Amino acid sequence: MRCGQVKFRNGSLEGKATLMKCFVTGGAGFVGSNIVDRLLDDGHEVVCFDDFSTGQRRFLEAAERRGGFGLVRGNIQDADALQTASKGCDTVFHLAANADVRFGPEHPGKDLEQNTVGTFNVLEAMRRNGIARIAFSSTGSVYGESPVIPTPEDAPFPVQTSLYGASKLAGEGLISAYCEAFDMRGWIFRFVSILGERYSHGHVFDFCKSLFQDPSTLRVLGDGTQRKSYLYVKDCVEAIVVAMEKCREKVNILNLGTDEYVKVNDSVRIITNELGVSPFLTYSGGSQGWIGDNPFIFLKCERVRSLGWRPRETIADSIRKTVRYIRDNGWLLEAR
Amino acid sequence: MRCGQVKFRNGSLEGKATLMKCFVTGGAGFVGSNIVDRLLDDGHEVVCFDDFSTGQRRFLEAAERRGGFGLVRGNIQDADALQTASKGCDTVFHLAANADVRFGPEHPGKDLEQNTVGTFNVLEAMRRNGIARIAFSSTGSVYGESPVIPTPEDAPFPVQTSLYGASKLAGEGLISAYCEAFDMRGWIFRFVSILGERYSHGHVFDFCKSLFQDPSTLRVLGDGTQRKSYLYVKDCVEAIVVAMEKCREKVNILNLGTDEYVKVNDSVRIITNELGVSPFLTYSGGSQGWIGDNPFIFLKCERVRSLGWRPRETIADSIRKTVRYIRDNGWLLEAR
Repeated sequence: MRCGQVKFRNGSLEGKATLMKCFVTGGAGFVGSNIVDRLLDDGHEVVCFDDFSTGQRRFLEAAERRGGFGLVRGNIQDADALQTASKGCDTVFHLAANADVRFGPEHPGKDLEQNTVGTFNVLEAMRRNGIARIAFSSTGSVYGESPVIPTPEDAPFPVQTSLYGASKLAGEGLISAYCEAFDMRGWIFRFVSILGERYSHGHVFDFCKSLFQDPSTLRVLGDGTQRKSYLYVKDCVEAIVVAMEKCREKVNILNLGTDEYVKVNDSVRIITNELGVSPFLTYSGGSQGWIGDNPFIFLKCERVRSLGWRPRETIADSIRKTVRYIRDNGWLLEAR
Repeated sequence: MRCGQVKFRNGSLEGKATLMKCFVTGGAGFVGSNIVDRLLDDGHEVVCFDDFSTGQRRFLEAAERRGGFGLVRGNIQDADALQTASKGCDTVFHLAANADVRFGPEHPGKDLEQNTVGTFNVLEAMRRNGIARIAFSSTGSVYGESPVIPTPEDAPFPVQTSLYGASKLAGEGLISAYCEAFDMRGWIFRFVSILGERYSHGHVFDFCKSLFQDPSTLRVLGDGTQRKSYLYVKDCVEAIVVAMEKCREKVNILNLGTDEYVKVNDSVRIITNELGVSPFLTYSGGSQGWIGDNPFIFLKCERVRSLGWRPRETIADSIRKTVRYIRDNGWLLEAR
């Protein structure tokens, strides 16, 4: 691991016209590391930039054995480090973020610093280095409590309900304005919650952790009827790749989700079946769920489907794959 | 002028239940100082917080002669100063901003710092001081290039086209999220351009300045057919007062404008008639207008009209009042 400009291990891939030199912020995170692997699979060069505050070095084990991969330990609050590390790249995948959606009155500035100012720093590094393409992981939370469900990209102008959503919306706005002002091109992806390999926080994780510790009982926050929409991480990555290939507007905004949702009780049943346990369920009650529980986010995904993309996994199978991954990677329960 | 907590000159107005202790950021600016005067007229106490980077001490001459007024020189980048100065207030009017909409590639961080992070600092000062009400000067620029004109508050989710609009949208998002998280109440006003007494930047100002220097010619940027929507500053202030009285949602978002617009050529005719000059007009050509010229912003204002508010001035009369004000306040041409 080096700081400063990266030399690629196995030389440059230049010469193949469609190949990219990618700069992936948060590349050691859940979605980020899946993107890194996919980009390497497709023959692109990748510089991963991560501060390992929540990212895991082990998520990069496969990447680090391959050519065309470089790793820089750095924080997106550090504008100089960003500028140095991204030099020579042509496309940014900006995944680094405070992804802890839980309501945080004890540090209300965290989302602003990491998600809004951090995105500004990434854009400034791009502008200074002449990098013209950025993909951004936004969130369905930017729709607040939308009156339209499933929610399309051009839903009525929303009112923000979370600091997380507000900070991501601000990031979207900065990217769009930079695209307009500095002749960049942006792909903004509004995610539902993502599941799959390397998933390491959220309710499936919490349920598994609890069941490994004590398979006899499971406490469910809320009344279990809360609805949740999920997308499998490899379907998410595929959608990003397809959209960046096919959408050529200056600013391209796409919802990413499936056409289904599950109730928390369904999710609990799938998890317990997969683990072969039969816990006694207790409910905290109330429709709100746990602290920081989101309102129902269910996105209309016709725009990305019109590109030919379809999710390959159902939500049920995504949950099963996630549970298996968590079961087979006990170290992750300790790391978090 | 004192720094630190303010003592009101003529004692407190406490005891009258409906009276407010107001903290006005940017209170020495164009709109801010008009709000200060109106609040004092209505019997409220006012602490004006301004760094005088663009605000004018002379705009506060009347206020400074009155009771219930305090002035603190400070910058909204200074979180501690904000917290100290706003202590004891119950309502914030957050007007301080970088209002220079012109495209600024030489300082792309200015809008973020002053309009987004500055708004965050104001909200943090409120949270720490237990201040629960905030009125915010946003802008019709947050609609980007709306497909719907006139544009209602719940127009399709816009794509940002300017760093200024993006920074104000981010401010809106922060305010909404704070209202949700910390039990505050917000009034967000999306302004068209404002005209009237103390107006000190924008195209009417530039035209007047040019004509005072040389009444024989006037250079018009663009082809003169660009459409502009304006609101008279006292109508704007009246709408803010009415909305804060009548709108009781957690987050109240209101467009502020008139039902008319003018073309730049109409505006030129009104200005030259008012000044009694007949310049030879030259045009730079193109529909875009000057650097940083906005797309046409024309807002649907049914929501604020449903409260009983009506603008008293036409755009033509607003322009005339503005021209007279600039003519009678030559010092302002030097100050800017």
